[in-house]
Amino acid sequence: MKQYIEQNKERFFEELFSILRIPSISAKPENKPDMVRCANRLKELLLEAGADMADVMPTSGNPVVFGRKIIDPSYKTILVYGHYDVQPPEPLEKWKTDPFEPVIHDDAIWCRGANDDKGQLFMHIKAFEFMVRSGQLKHNVKFIFEGEEEIGSPSLPEFIKQNKELLAADICLVSDTTMISDKVPSINCGMRGLAYLEVKVTGPNKDLHSGHYGGAVANPINVLCDLISSLIDKDGRITVPGFYDKVVELTPDERKMLARAPFSMDEFKEFLDINEVKGEKGYTTMERIGIRPSLDVCGIWGGYTGQGAKTVLPSEAHAKISMRLVPKQTSAEISKMFMDHFLRIAPPYVKVEVTPYESGDGFLIPISSDAYKAASRAIGEVYGIEPVPSRGGGSIPILAEFQKVLGLDPLLMGFGLERDTIHSPNESYLLRQFFGGMESIALFYRYY
Amino acid sequence: MKQYIEQNKERFFEELFSILRIPSISAKPENKPDMVRCANRLKELLLEAGADMADVMPTSGNPVVFGRKIIDPSYKTILVYGHYDVQPPEPLEKWKTDPFEPVIHDDAIWCRGANDDKGQLFMHIKAFEFMVRSGQLKHNVKFIFEGEEEIGSPSLPEFIKQNKELLAADICLVSDTTMISDKVPSINCGMRGLAYLEVKVTGPNKDLHSGHYGGAVANPINVLCDLISSLIDKDGRITVPGFYDKVVELTPDERKMLARAPFSMDEFKEFLDINEVKGEKGYTTMERIGIRPSLDVCGIWGGYTGQGAKTVLPSEAHAKISMRLVPKQTSAEISKMFMDHFLRIAPPYVKVEVTPYESGDGFLIPISSDAYKAASRAIGEVYGIEPVPSRGGGSIPILAEFQKVLGLDPLLMGFGLERDTIHSPNESYLLRQFFGGMESIALFYRYY
Repeated sequence: MKQYIEQNKERFFEELFSILRIPSISAKPENKPDMVRCANRLKELLLEAGADMADVMPTSGNPVVFGRKIIDPSYKTILVYGHYDVQPPEPLEKWKTDPFEPVIHDDAIWCRGANDDKGQLFMHIKAFEFMVRSGQLKHNVKFIFEGEEEIGSPSLPEFIKQNKELLAADICLVSDTTMISDKVPSINCGMRGLAYLEVKVTGPNKDLHSGHYGGAVANPINVLCDLISSLIDKDGRITVPGFYDKVVELTPDERKMLARAPFSMDEFKEFLDINEVKGEKGYTTMERIGIRPSLDVCGIWGGYTGQGAKTVLPSEAHAKISMRLVPKQTSAEISKMFMDHFLRIAPPYVKVEVTPYESGDGFLIPISSDAYKAASRAIGEVYGIEPVPSRGGGSIPILAEFQKVLGLDPLLMGFGLERDTIHSPNESYLLRQFFGGMESIALFYRYY
Repeated sequence: MKQYIEQNKERFFEELFSILRIPSISAKPENKPDMVRCANRLKELLLEAGADMADVMPTSGNPVVFGRKIIDPSYKTILVYGHYDVQPPEPLEKWKTDPFEPVIHDDAIWCRGANDDKGQLFMHIKAFEFMVRSGQLKHNVKFIFEGEEEIGSPSLPEFIKQNKELLAADICLVSDTTMISDKVPSINCGMRGLAYLEVKVTGPNKDLHSGHYGGAVANPINVLCDLISSLIDKDGRITVPGFYDKVVELTPDERKMLARAPFSMDEFKEFLDINEVKGEKGYTTMERIGIRPSLDVCGIWGGYTGQGAKTVLPSEAHAKISMRLVPKQTSAEISKMFMDHFLRIAPPYVKVEVTPYESGDGFLIPISSDAYKAASRAIGEVYGIEPVPSRGGGSIPILAEFQKVLGLDPLLMGFGLERDTIHSPNESYLLRQFFGGMESIALFYRYY
């Protein structure tokens, strides 16, 4: 495929950029029209690449793009999953270039979505195109691209139930994750789930003068800080009762196998510019990310946040809280546990509300499967070294649904790298990963 | 003066509204031109009211408006202090009317600054006008209106030092505080000081994906919550070492006298719509506001605060913290104590910065003075009941400077009420307080 890439590079960039330029931010209602534009453009790309049919299908939320090429019903069928929605670009002031105007420099594509997931799903469209045009395709291929992954895929489970026939396949192929490094390729064989909630603490029914009331009335920001602080103990363990009940402790052997993945604490600290790491007592950094649950405040706001000093005792304080879950912890159970706990610990001098947002369960992937072996061989050939099985900390909530409803094991061939800083300003995607990914996927078709 | 008010009501409103309409927000650089416009308008009003001279005088910050009428050097001189700057109107969505378009309904004026302090300083201009035009003025009167009170009067101390002669007087008369209620008039004879700082906690050098890093890297928001939570113990006492060293414990008699001020816990809770109050153990609500120091987070922000869910482990978290101080606690000392403490308790896995903002010391006023007696008699006559001496929780940092540099005791004839919700949305000023204040001030001139 190398040669095909060389010959078509410029066209690939033009095509990818045409979807990167669309600000398909699923978290923002005002971007609804962009979701539809992006879906329609992907439909075009699938048809141009050689799909028999492609369509933009409605859901209760953003539309799903479905396309397919059926060669012979007796052949194995690969379902390629990806998502065309992206994270909000904020904080805007930290972007070196326009978040939705892709540019190429320093051997990478820079743009929101360059990696997550527009850049990665695009590799599949082009690998498919190559297999079709070179007459090598020996599988039936189906594509499903959703527009709500970054908000927890609220509509997709129902869509999957409604379209079992349409989506039937042997394997679900996904590129929406990272590798350990471009020198150490890895295949992700387990992901954490997610429970995401927003909390609101209300004190007095109006903002007050901090001088006239300070010291005599509970300040909702101070109270929110107390509550959040109480959620994690000094050993880095989450204090929500029952939170760890279903967490599976790995065996020493399993932990040893995961420890094979090379990790440099110095590089890790240097990359993040931190002096020390912090996490649950008794676990390594890789274990804290891969096999242990976590709780993070993703956003907090309340009172006066403008310039200068405003002496106010505010009426409200808010926070967005995400919990990463490990297999067997269900997001539904954990969300409920959190809500019950948070309401229980709320002191009588404030009112507290908790609103659950997105959620999804984690899962594990059998590394003994044919699909895993084919992927391992393909990536090994492109990178010249056998990939390491790893555990990713992120979440693709919907993959658990594919497993449950369609009986499809997901195969995570992710080509992102830490340095791509997805979900953050200046998201990028290294060109050698972008093209290496295409080659690996094409080889996977050959070996699977 | 009652009659004079009746005859000139409409003109009074027009004149007051002309300054209320100017958004003189000292906390916002973009409003600089409005500060100058507001100062010039006040100069006009002083001259129209009968001042010999009035001028807009430059400072290192926003200009000061100074005006005077000297009748006879042998007469007592009253220095009237007020401020023409206002608090930011945020949160805008909570205003029922335009924050800078005054309206009159429900017997009150509604507008940012209607009370604090444009409405209150305007009472002095009109009382002065009445005394002049009715030929009853038997004092020399000086006016100083500053434009930086809401940001801690950074430029005024220097201005005072530079203009001792110009500002020389026997008493400093101020209307920038509240009464217990319009049924229970009170004169404020003590105010708390203020120390205001902004803190910044930095974790990783970029926003991270909460899935890829959550649990393995310190989250600056969680850490900020831990730090803030640790600043106040379970008894409601501030944990900054040395914080209480200079706090003067009142004698049982003094506490008894303050307790004379009527206070209904039920009304207090109902007004704020809270189920319970919260504060330092061993003190009443009025004591917590009047004679005890306090610490409040006035604003907090970090991470994703937009709509929907963003799974980010942010790089930074920020908070604005105000401490209300009692006499003998100097804001300089307390600010330093806070900075030292906050930097000391910062854990090694984050970086912490602390920036001091505005500050000012508290003070006490002798209630045995002629000025206090005259004010008490004047207010008693207007309200038909002797005013109660009270301790206000707010701060007018600059008044301590007048005392120190000019040897002027301040007299706080404030006519605001709790219900006016200054510093908050829908600030208002009751007309009967507005006009009752004018009458009281005019009578003060007679009895002083």
